[in-house]
Amino acid sequence: MDALQAAPHIGQLVAGPLNAITDVPGVAVGHCTLDHGPVQTGVTMLRPHGGDCFLQKVPAGAAVINGFGKSVGLVQVQELGVLESPIALTNTFAVGTVATALIRSAIAAQPEIGRTLPTVNPLVFECNDGYLNDLHAFAVTEAHAQQALASTASTFAQGAVGAGRGMTCFGLKGGIGSASRLAPTPVARFTVGALVLANFGRPAAFTLAGRHIGPALAQRLAAPSTGPERGSIIMLLATDAPLDARQLRRLATRAGAGLARTGSDYGHGSGDIALAFSTAYTVPQQLGRLQALTLLHEAMLDPLFEAAAQATEQAIVNALFAAETVTGRDGNKRIALTALARDWQALQQAA
Amino acid sequence: MDALQAAPHIGQLVAGPLNAITDVPGVAVGHCTLDHGPVQTGVTMLRPHGGDCFLQKVPAGAAVINGFGKSVGLVQVQELGVLESPIALTNTFAVGTVATALIRSAIAAQPEIGRTLPTVNPLVFECNDGYLNDLHAFAVTEAHAQQALASTASTFAQGAVGAGRGMTCFGLKGGIGSASRLAPTPVARFTVGALVLANFGRPAAFTLAGRHIGPALAQRLAAPSTGPERGSIIMLLATDAPLDARQLRRLATRAGAGLARTGSDYGHGSGDIALAFSTAYTVPQQLGRLQALTLLHEAMLDPLFEAAAQATEQAIVNALFAAETVTGRDGNKRIALTALARDWQALQQAA
Amino acid sequence: MDALQAAPHIGQLVAGPLNAITDVPGVAVGHCTLDHGPVQTGVTMLRPHGGDCFLQKVPAGAAVINGFGKSVGLVQVQELGVLESPIALTNTFAVGTVATALIRSAIAAQPEIGRTLPTVNPLVFECNDGYLNDLHAFAVTEAHAQQALASTASTFAQGAVGAGRGMTCFGLKGGIGSASRLAPTPVARFTVGALVLANFGRPAAFTLAGRHIGPALAQRLAAPSTGPERGSIIMLLATDAPLDARQLRRLATRAGAGLARTGSDYGHGSGDIALAFSTAYTVPQQLGRLQALTLLHEAMLDPLFEAAAQATEQAIVNALFAAETVTGRDGNKRIALTALARDWQALQQAA
Amino acid sequence: MDALQAAPHIGQLVAGPLNAITDVPGVAVGHCTLDHGPVQTGVTMLRPHGGDCFLQKVPAGAAVINGFGKSVGLVQVQELGVLESPIALTNTFAVGTVATALIRSAIAAQPEIGRTLPTVNPLVFECNDGYLNDLHAFAVTEAHAQQALASTASTFAQGAVGAGRGMTCFGLKGGIGSASRLAPTPVARFTVGALVLANFGRPAAFTLAGRHIGPALAQRLAAPSTGPERGSIIMLLATDAPLDARQLRRLATRAGAGLARTGSDYGHGSGDIALAFSTAYTVPQQLGRLQALTLLHEAMLDPLFEAAAQATEQAIVNALFAAETVTGRDGNKRIALTALARDWQALQQAA
Repeated sequence: MDALQAAPHIGQLVAGPLNAITDVPGVAVGHCTLDHGPVQTGVTMLRPHGGDCFLQKVPAGAAVINGFGKSVGLVQVQELGVLESPIALTNTFAVGTVATALIRSAIAAQPEIGRTLPTVNPLVFECNDGYLNDLHAFAVTEAHAQQALASTASTFAQGAVGAGRGMTCFGLKGGIGSASRLAPTPVARFTVGALVLANFGRPAAFTLAGRHIGPALAQRLAAPSTGPERGSIIMLLATDAPLDARQLRRLATRAGAGLARTGSDYGHGSGDIALAFSTAYTVPQQLGRLQALTLLHEAMLDPLFEAAAQATEQAIVNALFAAETVTGRDGNKRIALTALARDWQALQQAA
Repeated sequence: MDALQAAPHIGQLVAGPLNAITDVPGVAVGHCTLDHGPVQTGVTMLRPHGGDCFLQKVPAGAAVINGFGKSVGLVQVQELGVLESPIALTNTFAVGTVATALIRSAIAAQPEIGRTLPTVNPLVFECNDGYLNDLHAFAVTEAHAQQALASTASTFAQGAVGAGRGMTCFGLKGGIGSASRLAPTPVARFTVGALVLANFGRPAAFTLAGRHIGPALAQRLAAPSTGPERGSIIMLLATDAPLDARQLRRLATRAGAGLARTGSDYGHGSGDIALAFSTAYTVPQQLGRLQALTLLHEAMLDPLFEAAAQATEQAIVNALFAAETVTGRDGNKRIALTALARDWQALQQAA
Repeated sequence: MDALQAAPHIGQLVAGPLNAITDVPGVAVGHCTLDHGPVQTGVTMLRPHGGDCFLQKVPAGAAVINGFGKSVGLVQVQELGVLESPIALTNTFAVGTVATALIRSAIAAQPEIGRTLPTVNPLVFECNDGYLNDLHAFAVTEAHAQQALASTASTFAQGAVGAGRGMTCFGLKGGIGSASRLAPTPVARFTVGALVLANFGRPAAFTLAGRHIGPALAQRLAAPSTGPERGSIIMLLATDAPLDARQLRRLATRAGAGLARTGSDYGHGSGDIALAFSTAYTVPQQLGRLQALTLLHEAMLDPLFEAAAQATEQAIVNALFAAETVTGRDGNKRIALTALARDWQALQQAA
Repeated sequence: MDALQAAPHIGQLVAGPLNAITDVPGVAVGHCTLDHGPVQTGVTMLRPHGGDCFLQKVPAGAAVINGFGKSVGLVQVQELGVLESPIALTNTFAVGTVATALIRSAIAAQPEIGRTLPTVNPLVFECNDGYLNDLHAFAVTEAHAQQALASTASTFAQGAVGAGRGMTCFGLKGGIGSASRLAPTPVARFTVGALVLANFGRPAAFTLAGRHIGPALAQRLAAPSTGPERGSIIMLLATDAPLDARQLRRLATRAGAGLARTGSDYGHGSGDIALAFSTAYTVPQQLGRLQALTLLHEAMLDPLFEAAAQATEQAIVNALFAAETVTGRDGNKRIALTALARDWQALQQAA
């Protein structure tokens, strides 16, 4: 995490103690990283709480900013406003395998799923790591997914780990990044945490904490100054604020503001998808009575929106600062941001 | 209402005491009808409760089944999940005037709207009554809208009244129809009421309580057996079940099932829009604390969905049975269903 | 297909020569059926044309009528308006495996996918066949998916075959059904074909060609007269009319009208999803110039909408008439409609 | 326009000759400004082309980034993918009056609208100028709307004019701003123009060309460092690239990236709505044959997306640089950015 010390602080809100999505109590993240020659990929799992997600669902909302992506499970989240499985991140070709693993894991806990209970909706997001990783190897197995799930904890690595192992961001090594912000509202101070799988951006567009260092970066990388924006970014937001699914969709939309400030124009080929969930309450699979809830009033959402945008931007920056240089398939290589410049001041001077 | 006695009962659920949307406690409906020569039009107003809608908003969700329509206010309902004004129905060219009337009415009650309070979102729906009504006369004034608002009550006329004055349905005289159904759930028996402004349908497609009497009808009307589906239908649903905005959007979607059963294919030129709201709780304009709610569990929605489909179909049938023959602009005339056949058995025998 | 002879004709439009989705030239359908004891499931594949779907994409649009479903690939279809893989239907737990099979098949044809070419978006829809089929067996393999793909042809079986093997519809044996309708427009007569995977509906709600035979059916089946609507329906529409993605989304919405007429209220637990595509032109993966198109004018859509609703309703009816009685997991059994009544007149007399 | 000379250039793409939305050939903009004491408001009109918009519709797509707004006409644009009236901007309470004016104007040109022709869908967007303007005066009349329409031209004023007269942006005087960018694609260099009605933003959040000068600005204005984001922004995009409605919706989404870079988090109370249209072709009201089109391939959209984001951000900046200080209702006053600092370098030094 030393590298993260050098990362600039984004925005004016204060971070939580871990400056990670796990500042939201109950949230846990784990990785399984595959790092052998042309195979540079993996799985990252996020659990919204310590219990059984199927029996105790979590309110959730999603924003599809650019839908060039192969995520699994969003249709049902948009209809029912809950997630009922851990959230998996992986490479594009591993989505099916990881979804099957999540189903099997849910059945292991609740054998009546698909019998007297309905089926379960696995939630899997993906980015394309085909530059560094040999996608055609289909290297990710169900066991890797279970391993990532078993390793979830409140502290977790960032950068070129788990699903982030083979990802590229602004022509640099990208991957997993996380951050959090505290949002003061009239009723309480809530936490908004972000976790991103960052695999997007043209080098020339990169903007670090408001500084447009992209042109200098492109020069250093000898990258073309134009060209399509490939890749994708998955942005997960967690909060302990008591929001309903509609409000969480609104929160997820604000991830797009943080993303734009790093230089993304939501490129055509970039699957830019955000999902927000709340841990403030759960929705039981069955309930024989009305459910009592307390929800945040709409007029108090602004600090959460600000926190969502800042945490997302910070998580992207952290992914870049945490990542190490990786060489993969066919000798393809992505250099770490920190290999180019020891700290961001140096980078800015280069701008 | 005698004519409504002859209308067939749709579906297996039981109606409320009034068999109208006003079976949902607090809901009130009123009309202002313009009936002079080529001017055959009007305004219908629905109040979701007896209080101030701006200060005590009502949870709401909408389903745009076919968006060939000029409704006002849906964008904000879809974002915020509440309605904050009475709901107005009128002709297509009167939407602007009626919206302005709703704003003025809201300001009269809350003079700080647009000053220290935000602006208000008037909700106005429309259908095109240009066949019977001289739209170019722009006959509806703000005073007519206020008059409709002032006349809202729990009992109200159906058929060729208010906004329904000039409407056409399956080549017959259409207009305002209403119905209700009781939905038994494990926690309580809830009411779902429907109010429609019915102005849609090709004669040959008309299906009455499952009987496809359209071809016989088309023959009687000497209507072409094919041709585009013009017009529109607005479908308002009210319930006393405690639903949130997302659930209400789901409820509104079921109005489309009732609509389809009358013979509509959601024609290209037909603005088919449904909005559902709940009276079980209100959302205050301002709140200094968390809001406590009790909501219905998702798994209990099915009886409400069934009630929504049946109440909508019944409301369309009621609009047809309640309507009287109207002659308007240029001698254009729409015959009442009941002028063709004294009751629906006779109609079926004709089929 | 003899059983289909007994099925009533829905609506007034004429069917194509095959009365199947394959009346749209180029469309081919194939099955792989698993039928051994508690394993009663399978895969159905639809190819939109005879070429490579990735290189020559097909314009498409989707309507999520009720999103309680685990379909894969819809997010990208909604964004980009094309499908770029065959369409697979299978059981809920096989979605991941079948998606992986589609990716592998696409790579086999185009090895640069995931390297110099982008990744591919597999399109997989599902229903829950867990009553007849042992979902926990995870019996569907990639080989089964490839087998279904290899068997696609313009003639194909309906009923309890392929993905339809274990499905239930209105308490009867459901499964795969198909139909087509010819839609006369001012410029040409186009074909609209439907293929459904029918796995929805409460017995008491069943309406056959306008006749509400559900109560009689429920009595025969000794089914409860109320209860939640489980299951799901996937509705695929093909047309040779030159429509763009937005128009195809509008066409897909009309499948919901046909569905409603069979008795569905779009139940809470039913994933009701429609997808429409056109074979009139393709969108190449790469193009160095502007693409010339000819598209149908919006005002000519009504006959296609009518055809979509009728073909969908007919396809559901055909699924029921084509299906044979199946006994599966734990001796669970779904009786064929045709085992209850030799023809629909008999069924109606029972009503 | 001298003030605009001082505005920083946003992004790396080049502006068109006018650096305004009217760089897209055929687009014309006009204002009617009301400036008398407590009445500080107006109407701005945009014509997409010089002909009759109803007979020759323009392909269009919209993105509702935050739907706290009272726009009129979006539902139909989202369904049909065309706009068929000039686009009006005005204050929140004038929406109804201006919509009626647009209807009357369309009828004047085509008297069969609402008779043998369908009704017309007026498109009106709004922001709340109630701080400077006495909204309760309902000062805007239909005549003002017609006046704005009559004054449309390829050159037009920016800043505190037309609908922008009473608007506030980041605590400064906001209003109308415009810009354009040239987007090089493999087939041609296209123009993307933006016109904004800027009425949003907390002073402390203001970011000018990447510089976060908000805190310094808030200090100068003695504005609170926190507080809700009120107001709204309407973002109109025009292009001569041949895009369809779906592609235009994608283009409109990118306006949100430009907006975010100025410091907006898409605040709860801010109606942030974007609409994009193309002038490359028109869709006739009636057509007896297939319509031949040539469309841009999806893979060529990235330069247009980049242009949309940059033109939007530039248009916001231009609104601020063009605006003059305005004093209105109750002596309320909004200071011009240029009254605080003669140029942006000075502002940055203050940061």
